[in-house]
Amino acid sequence: MHAHITALVSAALAEDAPWGDITSENLVPASAGLSAQLVAREPGVFSGVDLLRTAFELVDPSLEVELYTEDGARFAAGETLAAIHGSARAILRAERIALNFVQRTSAIATTTSRYVDAIAGTKARIVDTRKTTPGLRLIERQAVRNGGGFNHRTTLSDAVMVKDNHLASLLAAGIGVTEALIQLRQKLPHTTHIEVEVDRLDQIDAVLEAGVDTIMLDNFSLADLEKGVAHIGGRALVEASGGVNLDTVAAIAATGVDIISVGALTHSIKALDLGLDVV
Amino acid sequence: MHAHITALVSAALAEDAPWGDITSENLVPASAGLSAQLVAREPGVFSGVDLLRTAFELVDPSLEVELYTEDGARFAAGETLAAIHGSARAILRAERIALNFVQRTSAIATTTSRYVDAIAGTKARIVDTRKTTPGLRLIERQAVRNGGGFNHRTTLSDAVMVKDNHLASLLAAGIGVTEALIQLRQKLPHTTHIEVEVDRLDQIDAVLEAGVDTIMLDNFSLADLEKGVAHIGGRALVEASGGVNLDTVAAIAATGVDIISVGALTHSIKALDLGLDVV
Amino acid sequence: MHAHITALVSAALAEDAPWGDITSENLVPASAGLSAQLVAREPGVFSGVDLLRTAFELVDPSLEVELYTEDGARFAAGETLAAIHGSARAILRAERIALNFVQRTSAIATTTSRYVDAIAGTKARIVDTRKTTPGLRLIERQAVRNGGGFNHRTTLSDAVMVKDNHLASLLAAGIGVTEALIQLRQKLPHTTHIEVEVDRLDQIDAVLEAGVDTIMLDNFSLADLEKGVAHIGGRALVEASGGVNLDTVAAIAATGVDIISVGALTHSIKALDLGLDVV
Amino acid sequence: MHAHITALVSAALAEDAPWGDITSENLVPASAGLSAQLVAREPGVFSGVDLLRTAFELVDPSLEVELYTEDGARFAAGETLAAIHGSARAILRAERIALNFVQRTSAIATTTSRYVDAIAGTKARIVDTRKTTPGLRLIERQAVRNGGGFNHRTTLSDAVMVKDNHLASLLAAGIGVTEALIQLRQKLPHTTHIEVEVDRLDQIDAVLEAGVDTIMLDNFSLADLEKGVAHIGGRALVEASGGVNLDTVAAIAATGVDIISVGALTHSIKALDLGLDVV
Amino acid sequence: MHAHITALVSAALAEDAPWGDITSENLVPASAGLSAQLVAREPGVFSGVDLLRTAFELVDPSLEVELYTEDGARFAAGETLAAIHGSARAILRAERIALNFVQRTSAIATTTSRYVDAIAGTKARIVDTRKTTPGLRLIERQAVRNGGGFNHRTTLSDAVMVKDNHLASLLAAGIGVTEALIQLRQKLPHTTHIEVEVDRLDQIDAVLEAGVDTIMLDNFSLADLEKGVAHIGGRALVEASGGVNLDTVAAIAATGVDIISVGALTHSIKALDLGLDVV
Amino acid sequence: MHAHITALVSAALAEDAPWGDITSENLVPASAGLSAQLVAREPGVFSGVDLLRTAFELVDPSLEVELYTEDGARFAAGETLAAIHGSARAILRAERIALNFVQRTSAIATTTSRYVDAIAGTKARIVDTRKTTPGLRLIERQAVRNGGGFNHRTTLSDAVMVKDNHLASLLAAGIGVTEALIQLRQKLPHTTHIEVEVDRLDQIDAVLEAGVDTIMLDNFSLADLEKGVAHIGGRALVEASGGVNLDTVAAIAATGVDIISVGALTHSIKALDLGLDVV
Repeated sequence: MHAHITALVSAALAEDAPWGDITSENLVPASAGLSAQLVAREPGVFSGVDLLRTAFELVDPSLEVELYTEDGARFAAGETLAAIHGSARAILRAERIALNFVQRTSAIATTTSRYVDAIAGTKARIVDTRKTTPGLRLIERQAVRNGGGFNHRTTLSDAVMVKDNHLASLLAAGIGVTEALIQLRQKLPHTTHIEVEVDRLDQIDAVLEAGVDTIMLDNFSLADLEKGVAHIGGRALVEASGGVNLDTVAAIAATGVDIISVGALTHSIKALDLGLDVV
Repeated sequence: MHAHITALVSAALAEDAPWGDITSENLVPASAGLSAQLVAREPGVFSGVDLLRTAFELVDPSLEVELYTEDGARFAAGETLAAIHGSARAILRAERIALNFVQRTSAIATTTSRYVDAIAGTKARIVDTRKTTPGLRLIERQAVRNGGGFNHRTTLSDAVMVKDNHLASLLAAGIGVTEALIQLRQKLPHTTHIEVEVDRLDQIDAVLEAGVDTIMLDNFSLADLEKGVAHIGGRALVEASGGVNLDTVAAIAATGVDIISVGALTHSIKALDLGLDVV
Repeated sequence: MHAHITALVSAALAEDAPWGDITSENLVPASAGLSAQLVAREPGVFSGVDLLRTAFELVDPSLEVELYTEDGARFAAGETLAAIHGSARAILRAERIALNFVQRTSAIATTTSRYVDAIAGTKARIVDTRKTTPGLRLIERQAVRNGGGFNHRTTLSDAVMVKDNHLASLLAAGIGVTEALIQLRQKLPHTTHIEVEVDRLDQIDAVLEAGVDTIMLDNFSLADLEKGVAHIGGRALVEASGGVNLDTVAAIAATGVDIISVGALTHSIKALDLGLDVV
Repeated sequence: MHAHITALVSAALAEDAPWGDITSENLVPASAGLSAQLVAREPGVFSGVDLLRTAFELVDPSLEVELYTEDGARFAAGETLAAIHGSARAILRAERIALNFVQRTSAIATTTSRYVDAIAGTKARIVDTRKTTPGLRLIERQAVRNGGGFNHRTTLSDAVMVKDNHLASLLAAGIGVTEALIQLRQKLPHTTHIEVEVDRLDQIDAVLEAGVDTIMLDNFSLADLEKGVAHIGGRALVEASGGVNLDTVAAIAATGVDIISVGALTHSIKALDLGLDVV
Repeated sequence: MHAHITALVSAALAEDAPWGDITSENLVPASAGLSAQLVAREPGVFSGVDLLRTAFELVDPSLEVELYTEDGARFAAGETLAAIHGSARAILRAERIALNFVQRTSAIATTTSRYVDAIAGTKARIVDTRKTTPGLRLIERQAVRNGGGFNHRTTLSDAVMVKDNHLASLLAAGIGVTEALIQLRQKLPHTTHIEVEVDRLDQIDAVLEAGVDTIMLDNFSLADLEKGVAHIGGRALVEASGGVNLDTVAAIAATGVDIISVGALTHSIKALDLGLDVV
Repeated sequence: MHAHITALVSAALAEDAPWGDITSENLVPASAGLSAQLVAREPGVFSGVDLLRTAFELVDPSLEVELYTEDGARFAAGETLAAIHGSARAILRAERIALNFVQRTSAIATTTSRYVDAIAGTKARIVDTRKTTPGLRLIERQAVRNGGGFNHRTTLSDAVMVKDNHLASLLAAGIGVTEALIQLRQKLPHTTHIEVEVDRLDQIDAVLEAGVDTIMLDNFSLADLEKGVAHIGGRALVEASGGVNLDTVAAIAATGVDIISVGALTHSIKALDLGLDVV
């Protein structure tokens, strides 16, 4: 992750100042120092310690970054999360990029923690999806973990997820689902997990018959989720998906599903209000 | 922009499938075809025609992408925005990346259009900020334009914005603001626009004296905004910033400011609900 | 894979001629044409159709590449596998790089097919390892598939393999294996497959107890492999590893293991003798 | 070479773990330390000190890498070549990549040294070819030098080699060889060495007449090699190529040729058995 | 700029030695040390301290680079500008690249300083153009500043310059200039400076009417420049362009223009004679 | 070269417009067409046909580029060298980059041709040096060839040049020159050309004794050049270097040297005056 984060932050810094920070470089003396604090203006769960540190250190390795939090730690409104000391020019140059990263990752961790809290006491996991921001998938996945959630597969390459549109393609090609899934298993590495999405209870048996690892019940009512869990009866893991929000998630978890996937963890995030205050 | 969009989408496709889409490649016959439609599940303003087309064409240049919308066009819930025909494998491979991009850019355009509508009839502009997603600044800036908004400076390199933390640094270094701004102007290209943020009405004169181009009134009350506009009296453009949302923006615009910057256009975006339906 | 192969071949072409092919460019007239054939000088299984085509087309898109084989096809000594027509300069420039790729990938496919043939009739799979050539993992994995083999996990990121050195680290840290594996499962995505290597029969129970997916029996005698398979009794997949060669593989497969991993498929390859003959 | 090796190893590490080493990171405590030794399981000649060191240091700059060998040094089976101390996670993460490199480069050095030993006492040089692994040419060339061999030209750009297929192209275009070679010399930098391949004794005069620097006698019998050497009589360097292996190389060297090129030094390499043992 | 300079010098070093410096590595012992001095063989103004230091330090971070000058400092013929101590191989490897950079950047600074001196006492600025060497724009712009000049816009993206060919395009499309410029202003960020080129005095009014920021008088006679400055009368900045050289620049500045742009600052540069002498 | 030129021009276009050409995109209608001609404002020799075409085609593949010249062709002042038809926006966007390249490369070809003309009738060659613009070495070397000159070695990797500073290093390390050169030859590929620089006539014998390929006589008087040529007497090629300009080159060539290297071909170039005129 270290090389990845360096590359990511480095690209963001270049995007933000292709030929320098003309304000600081022409206004603030090179010798001027500054002390600044990262302060939470609302409560949350932190994610992005490495991003924060990297943003400042890439601009100027001599900046001193003191951390008072860690990934996964909860904080209150008003809490000071970190302090940065050193060249005023360098701090002002890095400030916005550091914030653009950690406001987003901490928002994801914070939102995730709310879902996780909401299902406390059930066996279900809150997991993310592939609905991540282009380029930021790895840091967004880490933010989900920092918030107490779990990751789903990372990419199209590392696990199978057969979705409605795949099944529609099979149907259009006149291929039976069970047989297709059995052949699929036969071609893949023995390490590959196979998950299949179903839209109705009566689709479950054809899938179970093929011996899949996880069945996703997509947009099921609570009653149908419960029936699905009972019908599957431990022969595969059960994932609930669709219509999940903070109002519905506890009831969904109570149906006995193993996994609840929430696209909104990463696709609809309001930046957490963190600010950099000059001391 | 063409090369930029190709690079961006290409990186997103690689991030999503570092060694192929094992589901489609092993499940769906290479010869299977598919027709799919991009359908709006809620109303909005579209942005991202090039991103959409590029996502499908990079996966398979033989895919046919028909567009029924264009950047900046409004659409209703239920409207079909585009259709894609061709290899089922290729469409399923590109689907999520195409959606991850256009759900975000169209959300930005849609949100922007709401702010623009809210201040119709005033002379004010809605503008974006540097609070963009790392790596996506250029497409997010275009989305703001597609929504009827305007862009602020693009980077730290192309215009000057002197903010509170800069002024704090000057203060700490014992340097007077007016003098510093005059010297700043003297060093910069004649094409460089200079904008300065003030927090209080009594700071305006020191800034005006230096001959700046735009004064940003940060977190001013409506009454103070009005006083600020009157006091500046056309000697510089006036930007309002802070506390701007859809409930407050009309009143802010009514104070006579020229520019209203809104960080939330890009830092707090709920993905617009667009889906790809197999026909 | 298409973008990956283009990048790989493009880098190899640049490595081979950083400032042009001074022989062809200065010796052979630009207008001279050539027809050449890729001929097998020994029998084998082909892998690398895309690499072959890409090497020639990147040098000159107007070259015509006719293919008489396909990935996974067997061929006899003397068989013509492809023909290339067009600019003599371009063909001579691309020749060595095309051969460097397909001689290696076809050698891997050919070797793999020998292992696969040797265990015909058993339920075992021949699989590759992470002992691949730096930079060439994806094309080498495809070559294994083309030879009738299967892939193991692709990277350290997509599945768990707990090896002897991991267990040694746990031991050194005073951590119990079963407990560590149970906690590991709890932290990972539900899609992650867990495989554990054991060196002795008496280590199996501690691992089974943790509920792992595959157990690798490393450097077991045939007798112990058979005992291991019986003891595990379907509670996990069984992989045999170590001491596998064409003389031993049939007996190993006969012990009833599910998977036989062979490092030599990729780490010790004699280039297959394919030549480019001018017609 | 330093920047080249960093880039090469860095790419290999990324290829092997695009989103981290999920086994070590989730199983082994961050604080766990480890000492490991690189041990030779068969005798050989080492090549790749920088690759080895770089693989561990790129993963974690705080790892301590002690080297007990150097490039070009011979070692016995059972000898300890290096020791690595530090974070267990980091060592386990880097292990396979370090081995994938040095097992290959040391195999090349070892094989080369066998050829060099076989021709001891003659004036001939063992040289490599362009039949190198795509992406690894520079480190494979260094391995050949570490084994006591010499390098041929590095790329198509730095020296001329006129091969049979070039001559076939000239023939097809109705161009005389001697005249073409004279004109070639006239166009090239004065620093460019010109080597021409001939297949029969009677082709030598036409080539000598043009004043080339080296003549390669391709697939000549021992008798014809001797005749060729005598006929050329010092007017050009003489390279033997084709049919070279450890059984034939001494006799080939005894014919008096200056250079013997061996494709198998790099295109057909069995990984040298080096292992990393936890202490 | 630091990351930019590292990338630039690093690419130049790789361009100059794709597989090492075969002279120094094979001739000079690894342990040999050297002290060398950068000496000015003609007077000038230095630019490129960071380039110089980076060239040596990228080759070998242990080289000691002592600087006796700084960017913007004038020096006499014979003056020693810097000294480098350390590995002979490393110094000889970096020498030419270091010189290739600083001979060019110091030549630009020196030329610029001559133009600046020639107009001393007037209010005009000497500015650069987009006629820079591909790839070197940022360091050439810095060299202009080091010579006492000023920068014009950096790229096509950060300010508007409407030139004769744009006006010809508008004319061909039947679009009025004033109207087009007014609409242009309306679409651009409020931070964007608009400059328009005119070829004749009678074109000024149409442009002024649109409210542009700078008017460039292209290839005007001295008399017309004076008339132009008087006519514009402070309503826009005035730039003179065309026919500017060291013989004409003083008279041009005396006409009262604000800005004089000189393409020759960067497009026609004779390398400044700086040499590296072994002590 | 094709991939190299694409990368070079592509980087230059990005450097010149990181987020678009805001003038053309906002001023000129997307549908507006333009025809422009590349016109020579002074006589010269063209170099850069591929650069020119690539600059326009990378911006818009639908632009039509008609060429009336070719690399190496002489042209008169006023001659039309090429015409471009198509989108006005695209032509205006590419114009400056196209010119920045071909004005430089054609200037190099033109200057080279003057040196070549000046020595007509002698056996000497005009050759370039490593004093090229960082990043542009390959296109500058081609420009030298287009002007009728020849290339010296391309990089530090492909031929040996032992210069005064190398000899000083040997001296400082107490190593004899002849012995060092003999050992050098022994280590290098048989394809490597060895050139040594001498400063005085009495240094020639030590070098000749080692059997080098070329001797460079650096900063010799005409009389000494003649003596050097006579003394060497065909035992090595002879290169003259230092103090070469259009006034001196004929006399230098008349001394009988084989090669005359001219740093000024690439390090001190006044852009050739080529312009793009709208038709």
